[in-house]
Formats: sequence, structure tokens, C-alpha cells
Amino acid sequence: MIKINGLSPATLTPFTEAFEIDYGALTAHIQHTSDATGLFGITVNGHAGEVLTLSYDERAKVIVTARAALPSSLKLIAGIESHATDGLVREGLRAKEAGADLLLVIPPFDIRTWRHLSHDSDSVYRVFERLDREVGLPMIAFSYPEASGSAYSMDALRRIVSLDHVVAIKCSAGTPAKYAEMHDALHDKTTLLVAVDTPSMLGMLMHHAPGALVGIAVVGTQRWSDLVHHATEGDANIAKQFHISFAVPLMRSIFEYHTHRTPTCPFGATKEALLQLGQFPSSVVRAPGVRVDDAKRAEIRAGLIAAGLLRT
Amino acid sequence: MIKINGLSPATLTPFTEAFEIDYGALTAHIQHTSDATGLFGITVNGHAGEVLTLSYDERAKVIVTARAALPSSLKLIAGIESHATDGLVREGLRAKEAGADLLLVIPPFDIRTWRHLSHDSDSVYRVFERLDREVGLPMIAFSYPEASGSAYSMDALRRIVSLDHVVAIKCSAGTPAKYAEMHDALHDKTTLLVAVDTPSMLGMLMHHAPGALVGIAVVGTQRWSDLVHHATEGDANIAKQFHISFAVPLMRSIFEYHTHRTPTCPFGATKEALLQLGQFPSSVVRAPGVRVDDAKRAEIRAGLIAAGLLRT
Amino acid sequence: MIKINGLSPATLTPFTEAFEIDYGALTAHIQHTSDATGLFGITVNGHAGEVLTLSYDERAKVIVTARAALPSSLKLIAGIESHATDGLVREGLRAKEAGADLLLVIPPFDIRTWRHLSHDSDSVYRVFERLDREVGLPMIAFSYPEASGSAYSMDALRRIVSLDHVVAIKCSAGTPAKYAEMHDALHDKTTLLVAVDTPSMLGMLMHHAPGALVGIAVVGTQRWSDLVHHATEGDANIAKQFHISFAVPLMRSIFEYHTHRTPTCPFGATKEALLQLGQFPSSVVRAPGVRVDDAKRAEIRAGLIAAGLLRT
Amino acid sequence: MIKINGLSPATLTPFTEAFEIDYGALTAHIQHTSDATGLFGITVNGHAGEVLTLSYDERAKVIVTARAALPSSLKLIAGIESHATDGLVREGLRAKEAGADLLLVIPPFDIRTWRHLSHDSDSVYRVFERLDREVGLPMIAFSYPEASGSAYSMDALRRIVSLDHVVAIKCSAGTPAKYAEMHDALHDKTTLLVAVDTPSMLGMLMHHAPGALVGIAVVGTQRWSDLVHHATEGDANIAKQFHISFAVPLMRSIFEYHTHRTPTCPFGATKEALLQLGQFPSSVVRAPGVRVDDAKRAEIRAGLIAAGLLRT
Repeated sequence: MIKINGLSPATLTPFTEAFEIDYGALTAHIQHTSDATGLFGITVNGHAGEVLTLSYDERAKVIVTARAALPSSLKLIAGIESHATDGLVREGLRAKEAGADLLLVIPPFDIRTWRHLSHDSDSVYRVFERLDREVGLPMIAFSYPEASGSAYSMDALRRIVSLDHVVAIKCSAGTPAKYAEMHDALHDKTTLLVAVDTPSMLGMLMHHAPGALVGIAVVGTQRWSDLVHHATEGDANIAKQFHISFAVPLMRSIFEYHTHRTPTCPFGATKEALLQLGQFPSSVVRAPGVRVDDAKRAEIRAGLIAAGLLRT
Repeated sequence: MIKINGLSPATLTPFTEAFEIDYGALTAHIQHTSDATGLFGITVNGHAGEVLTLSYDERAKVIVTARAALPSSLKLIAGIESHATDGLVREGLRAKEAGADLLLVIPPFDIRTWRHLSHDSDSVYRVFERLDREVGLPMIAFSYPEASGSAYSMDALRRIVSLDHVVAIKCSAGTPAKYAEMHDALHDKTTLLVAVDTPSMLGMLMHHAPGALVGIAVVGTQRWSDLVHHATEGDANIAKQFHISFAVPLMRSIFEYHTHRTPTCPFGATKEALLQLGQFPSSVVRAPGVRVDDAKRAEIRAGLIAAGLLRT
Repeated sequence: MIKINGLSPATLTPFTEAFEIDYGALTAHIQHTSDATGLFGITVNGHAGEVLTLSYDERAKVIVTARAALPSSLKLIAGIESHATDGLVREGLRAKEAGADLLLVIPPFDIRTWRHLSHDSDSVYRVFERLDREVGLPMIAFSYPEASGSAYSMDALRRIVSLDHVVAIKCSAGTPAKYAEMHDALHDKTTLLVAVDTPSMLGMLMHHAPGALVGIAVVGTQRWSDLVHHATEGDANIAKQFHISFAVPLMRSIFEYHTHRTPTCPFGATKEALLQLGQFPSSVVRAPGVRVDDAKRAEIRAGLIAAGLLRT
Repeated sequence: MIKINGLSPATLTPFTEAFEIDYGALTAHIQHTSDATGLFGITVNGHAGEVLTLSYDERAKVIVTARAALPSSLKLIAGIESHATDGLVREGLRAKEAGADLLLVIPPFDIRTWRHLSHDSDSVYRVFERLDREVGLPMIAFSYPEASGSAYSMDALRRIVSLDHVVAIKCSAGTPAKYAEMHDALHDKTTLLVAVDTPSMLGMLMHHAPGALVGIAVVGTQRWSDLVHHATEGDANIAKQFHISFAVPLMRSIFEYHTHRTPTCPFGATKEALLQLGQFPSSVVRAPGVRVDDAKRAEIRAGLIAAGLLRT
């Protein structure tokens, strides 16, 4: 089984003002992100990569581009997304062919018509069983929080991690308490990656977590990697200090602690942060994502300064 | 403005055992359904048509097939679905070219990443404004219930019905109370179609409703059309009688009152009902939809008998 | 078993400006309400009677006063409320001694500490079993809607209606669909009273309901009694007409369709309606209930006029 | 303003097998708990003290007993509970007279009838304003999590902490992210006590928390006090170690991470833990609380052993 630990940032997809993918900027973004030490790999075509707005061709080309830009020592994780099981399998095969090392399986049940099936462990199992059999790449199952209405039950998780190719769970558990519950039930069977971009992250990392897969980590990647290292197996005092002085200002200004205080797209806000740091060409997002406005730009700037990434 | 009243059944998409669309059966299904009197039109590519599992090419071909099978006196309503605004516009243009008379706009926000935007009336307006401007077909906005997490606010609804091409709301309000609230706010500005396949339908129809757009009405279409007529403007005593003796047995056995008592796909159960009535080739659904099992078949048979559609 | 049908209005508790119970006004309120024909009885100490703010002594005195004011042909139903099982039993015994004919058992689980127990059918059963054994009055179990977080499961309901003294369920089901589900499961074992003061009432009444227990029925009681009669066993066309022209204007202006559009206490709004009709001394409510303001007064006046109870 | 920091355990109320309060055992429990160093005070009549089942006289006598047992250097915090504003004020005055130093104000809105008022900042303010004016003891406002349906809005919290006697918030925020949001908005105006008995506690303590007010801390009080000290201002590595090896086994076995995996009353489980440690006379709880069974006893025993409090 693949051993996954440390940080795997979920990267962004840069767009031109004409809403086309800027593949040159994507290459630079992947290279810059993967410069950090302590990474397991990087993720493309996740929610942070605005996968919902990418065509199937674009998704494949993003993988090819990322693979070319990524050192061979790092793994390439590719998100796959569809509300049809056939569609997911097709996406998986395309991602494999394009060069992905692992798949991040976004839940196909997160839509009103299927949502109740996320509580039916047979239905969940059948989807992963087909991916296991027909695609054959290592998979990370993205597990949503209860509040989403499409969380997998513990029984469903237990069944899917028994499949050969399901190597990890991306735990978007809402609370450290839920992370602990999943740890108790599953830690001897699989790897539970922390996947929240909010202040709840620290407590999860300190609760036996092996690593994290988060979008916010593309902003100041090395420090996020260090935070993950210190919270999980290094010096907890340093992790606490990084949490307070570095992580929280970014979580507040960019992700708004995931409260959706404003309608701004969090991935657009992440782009804006990298734009201000000179590492990204623009903050353009595709609709219905909402682009940052001037108030948000100022808030992000203040966050970057507070985090020590930008000078006043 | 198009005046919409009476019933518009949402039709099914028949599949072969190899999961291919059976276009011959689709033609027969459309013809049979449209034989009933009192219809405004029929709907394809809705949730009942398993739109989530159809490719873009299939969606277009379903429209072409339905248009050819439908009398010119009846309107063809085509569902469009995408989580990207560009994707919705593309779907709208394709549906227009394929021969749709009206669009049924499935909410693009019904997914964790966008769900909060369904409460932001600017975001909702922007999607419909683009469809209004770039597609230019009359539109029915599908409005989800609160419990879905992606209901439009009353303010958002007020704004979108001000657009020229938004001619009706498909009200999947959970309760007659919510339908009444929407009626108070919007009835002088738009048409509010009843869209629940449960026993909550009767009370909504009697509350000033002009018509209904529901999937269950493909089973015994003429009686559903009569029920809608009597509940809205005919004899309420007949409507009540039809509700008790005809509608409820089907709502219970096929749609399980939308409780998801079993994981069975409600659209597959509807297919099974038509199969037992000799009007459909099979009950095959595409995954992750769950096909009927023997217990469900027996329950549906009992429902058809209780509703007077099948002899013992 | 007691046969319960027709209407049982839930009455109010009149307060003086000093927040004391006005027992004279209570007597007049009970007498006026019970003048209508077609009633099963009347309810006191329900939520409409602001039971949460009444001391135990006041609750008993309300029962004594109501019993004295009520014709012997009508039943007196008394609400009992406590978050402790012992407390509920004590309340039941006090109500029995004070002259109640039946108890309305408000769920003891509707508080964060106990809410999960409402889903544990053993816990629900134990409470009603003790009341059954130790109090020995016929009981109506108040069943809350799912959205409350303290709804009883169908299994719990099945178990408690097997007890000798549990003679009816007050169904505050959110939707006619839920009412239908309860009807299927329980109608041959108990009586399912409709208990919503919103436009969802009509569809429930037409779905085999034997009667209703609602607070709004103290305003124009005779017409509510007629509405219940016609919807359940009379002429559905008249019921539909009463719904539109009489019931809905009151449901909108007094109960705000239970949307809590304003913070106003619905029971205070009901008091204000009776005050405007010359049947109640004041609209005073006890805190934290929020008294009507001038805007609400005007809205209620418009509602009474629309319902035909007040002249312009 | 009173400076509150460190730990304030919420104590239990011991009952005899006849369900009477065992005041002798209460005295011993208070004395034993208050032996630990690093405490601000202790709490009685909270949810852990089963306040919902205590009569008003019992609540007062518990305060008198606790005051007598508590060293004068420690503060006595008394919970007050009522669904009526008058009732809360009366409770506050009784608690003051009985010797409480501070009040813990349990939300009066946590019941279906009032729940919507918890989102109306005027209504929330009015309750605390009356307590501020008419009781005049320092108050800790108990703030419930969003999932309860009766969380105070940030605006309501901002307003009540402006009152002279509101000196702290007991933050039962579901997540460290919510704690962080409250910290940002309120930390310069009030004290935010951590109040979760789950693995989410550690991350909140490390996020600038001044202290904690939790029920689980009566089991091995000195170590909880040390954990709070190290997480907030001492050595984070020790706090992390205590979290893993001491706190989590107790949180899992006694509080079930607050998942209500079984119907057992968490306060009864806490009593059972102390019974096994020889510090409590029995695990009796009042109904509807559910007493521990043998399976739960064994689980608690395993938890105490894992936490190092009991030898095998």
C-alpha cells in the first residue's frame, strides 16, 4: 500500500481574462508549489482547481501539464467528478492515461437526486468497486462532512477502504471530534488525511493525523508543510505558533473560516493571494464562482501581511 | 407571455439492458403520454429522464426524438443541467437547436461548492440573466425546497421572474405553506407550477395553482390530468376522490412519498410501473441509480392494482 | 376508546397589563369558543396557552376555570409540560385532579440535552408508559415535525399508541406527505389529529383526517369547525372555498404561515385578533414572547377584514 | 471585570436509589473536585448537574451545599434554567441568595416555541438586560452550537457582552473554526470559555482560550487542569500528550464524543466513572435520562484504564 504522509496541496487552475486555461501559468504554479520540502505530492482538478467548470478535455490537459511540471519524486493526485458511475469510471481512465498517480474521488452523490444514496453503503460500495476494478489506480475517497447531507456512513467507509485501490480518505470532517471517531474506526485500515482549510485543522493534525490535503496550502507552501510536520510529529509548540501567527490570518482572510461570510469564491480568493505575492497571473474564476472585489482584495492583503508573507 | 396551465408530465428515458438509450421506446413513451387531454406539454431531460447520467449528445438526441413524436399542439420542455454557467448556456443553446420550446433550468448550485450561492440573489440572477440574454428561449426555473440546502430566496425568485424569458417557477416547495408563501409573493408576476409527487400535491393544487409538472404523471396520465383539472378549477370532491383512490396508492408504492424508504431509484420504479402496464420495455436505470428488486416489483404491482390501473 | 373527531381549538391565556392571569377573561374566552357547534372539546395549557410561562399553580387554576366555563358535553384537554419524567407525571396528576378529561403530552425531549432520546423508542415509550400507569387519563401525544429535531420515530409512535390511555396523536407533521405516511402506519391503531395552523392544513384534512387541534381556531371558531367538517366529510368545494377566503388570510396575518417572518409571538397575534374582534381584553404576552407592534396590528386588521370577520 | 481563566469543572448531582439528592455525597464530590490546583471555580446546576430534573428548592439547596463545601478561594458558578424570562430572573435571585458567585445562564430559547427568537438579537438582549438589572450577579452566557437550532447570532453576543454583568461566554461552538470566529469578534470584549467535552477541545484551547468549563473534568480533575494550563499557556507538547493518552480515552468511553452512539445519559456515564474510582455513591440518573448498563460499565472501565486512572 502506498504510504501517504505530509502535505499534498490542492492546486488552482489559472484562467486568462477570456476564461481560457493559462497552461503556462499552470506550469509555473505547479513548479512553485512543488518546490517546498516535505510534500507527498500535489493535487489537480480538485474543487480548488475549479473542476466543476472544466471540460473533460481540459481536465486531461491539466493532468498532462502538471505531470510534466512536477518532479518525478512527487505524486500527482487528480480529482475525478461526475454524477454518473459510468462518467466517474471514464474520468478515472482518462486521468490514468494522462499521467495521474492517484485519483481523488469526489462524491458522485452530492446532488439532490442521489443524496440519500450516500447513506446507503451498498450504493457507495458499488461506485468504488467499479473504480477499483475498471480503473485500477490508487484512490483517495473524498469524505464530506455531515452538514453536506452527503457524508458517507462509517459502515460505507469501512467497506470501501477494504478495496485494494482505496488507499486513503480525505477527511473533510467538520470537527476534530468527528476526525477522532473516524480515526478510532479506520486508522488501522487506511490513511486519514486532514482536509479542512479552517482553524479546526490544528486539532485534527495533533490527533494522530499522517498528513493533509488542502487548498490553502498553495499560499506559502513551505510553512504549511512545516506546520503539518510539527503538528503531527515535530514540536507542538512550533505548530501552535505557526497556527496563530501564520495559518489563521490566511484562513480568515482567504477562506473566511468557510463561513461564506461573502459570496466570493474561496478559490478566487486564493488566486488573488498568489497574485498579490507575484505568483499567479490573475484572480479570474469561472462562473458561477464570484470573483474578488476591492474590499476582498484589501482583506486578503491584510491577511498576507499578518501572516508575514507580504511587507506593508 | 406564454400561459402555462394544466399538466406537463416529466417523461422517462428508456434504456436497453446494455444501458443504451432505446429511442424507439422513447418515441412510443412520448406518444403514449401525449395522448391524454388537458396537457400543456411534456418534459424531457428532467430528473425523471435521468439527465444526470445522459451525455450531452444523448440529451440533444432525446429532444430531437421527443419533438418528432410530440403533436405540434403540445409544448416540449427540456431540462438543462450543469454546475458551470457556461455549461448551462451551452446546454440551453443545444436544446434550442434540437427543437425545445421551453427550458427547465435545474439549479446549478446544488453541489457543496456552490450551495451557499443559492442564497445570494446576485449569483442566482446572473445565471438566469445570461440564459435570458444568450439563449432566448422561455424558461421554467426549478425551485428546490429548503431542505435541499439550495433553495432560492424569495428575493432571488422575484428578481429572476422579472427577466423576459423566465415564464414560470417549478415549485418543489416541501409544503403547501411554502407554496402559499410563494403564491403571495409571486403569483401576479409569474406562474407557479406544482412539482411534488407526494400527497402534499393536492393541497397545493387547491391553493390557486395553475398546473403541475411532475414525473409520476406518466403512469395513468389521463387521470392525473383530470385530477389537476378538478383540483384547480373543476369539482374538488372529484379531485379529493382521485387523490385518495388513485394518486396516493401510486405515490406510496412508486415514489415512497419521497421518504427514500428503500434505496430504489424512484424513476426506475416509475419505469417498472409502466413495464407492468405494458407501456415500457424495461426498468433499467443507469448507475448510481438503484434498480427495482422483487420486493419493490410486488409493491408497485399492489399499487397499480389499488389505483385501478391493473387487474388482479 | 374515546372517539375524537371534529375540531378542538387550543385556547389562549389572557394576561393583565401586570402579566397576571385574567381569570374572568379566561372564562369568557372559553365560553365564547365553546359556543361553536361541531367541537369535540377545547384545549388549555397548550403552547397557545403559553404554558411555558405558567407556574404549576397557574396551570391547575386554568384547568379549574376552564372546566367550570365549559359545557359538560365538551371535553377538556389539558397540556402537560416538563423536561423531567417525574415532572410530567406530577403535571398529569395535577391536571386530573383539577378536572381535565384528557392530557395533551408536550414532548419532554424538546431540549438539547434530551433531543437524541426522541429517536430512541425505548426512551419515548418509558415516558408514556409511566403516564399510562401512574396518571390514567386518556392522552393525546403531541408529535413534532422532523425539522424540530425532536420528532418521534414511527416505531416509537407505534409503541406508545399500543398503551391503553394513548388515544390520539396530535400530528404537527410538516407536510401532508408525512401525514399520509403516519396515516398508513397508524390509522387503524389510533386517531391522527391535524395540528398545523398553516395552508398545509387543507391537504391533511382531506387525507382521511378525523379532526384538528389548532390554536388559530379560536378566531372565528364556527367557521373553522365548518371548514374541518367539509374538508373531512362534507363538501370539498366548500372546504376549498373556506380555505381560500377565510383560513388563508388569518394564517398569513396571524401565524405568518409559521415562517417567523417577524419575531412576534403567534399567540400574542392571536390575542390581538380577538382583541380587535372585541372578544379578548388585551394582547399581552409573557416574555420572552414578543408582543405585537403597530405594524403587526395593522396586518392582523387587514387579515380579519379579508377573512370577513371585521368590517372596514 | 472578573478575570476568568483556568478550569471550572461542571459538577454532578448524586442521587440515592430512591432518586433523592444525596447531599452528603454532593459535599464530598465538591470537596474532592475542588482539591485540584489551577481552578477558577466549580459549576453546579448545569446540564451535568441534571438541572432539568431538579425542583427549584433542590436547585437552591444544591447551591447552599456546594458553597459550604467549597474553599472561599474558589468561585461558585450556578446554572439557571427556565423557558420564561420571569422564571430566569427568579432563578437568578434564588441562586444569588443561596450563595452563588456567578450565574451560568442556560438559553431560555432552546424549545420549539422560542427557538426562532434565539436568532432575534433584540429578544436575546432583553433577557440578559433583565437579568443584568434585576439580579446583578456576574453572568456567563451559555452559547449553543449552530446545530442546536438555538445558537445566538454574533450580533446578539456582541450586544449582551456589552452589559455590565455579562463577564464571559461558555462557548459550546461545534468547531474550532467557530471558536476562532467568536474569538475574532469578541475576545477584546469578553472571555470565551471552551465548553466541549470532545476531541475538538484541544484545538480550541490552543486558539487563545483563557480556560474551560466542562463536565468531563470531574473525572481526574487535576489532569484536566494541567491539560488546560499546558494547552493555553504551558507546553503544547505536554498538552498534546495529555490529549492523546488521557483526555481522548475518557471522551470516547464516557461522552461517546457526543455522538449519542448509545442512549445512555453522558452525566450518568460520568457518575459511573467516579463510582468506579470510588468517588461517587452511584450512577443513578433521573428520567428521562438513561442509566448505564453493563456494556457501558465495561466500556467506561476500559476508558479509565486507558486514561491511567484505574489499574487493570
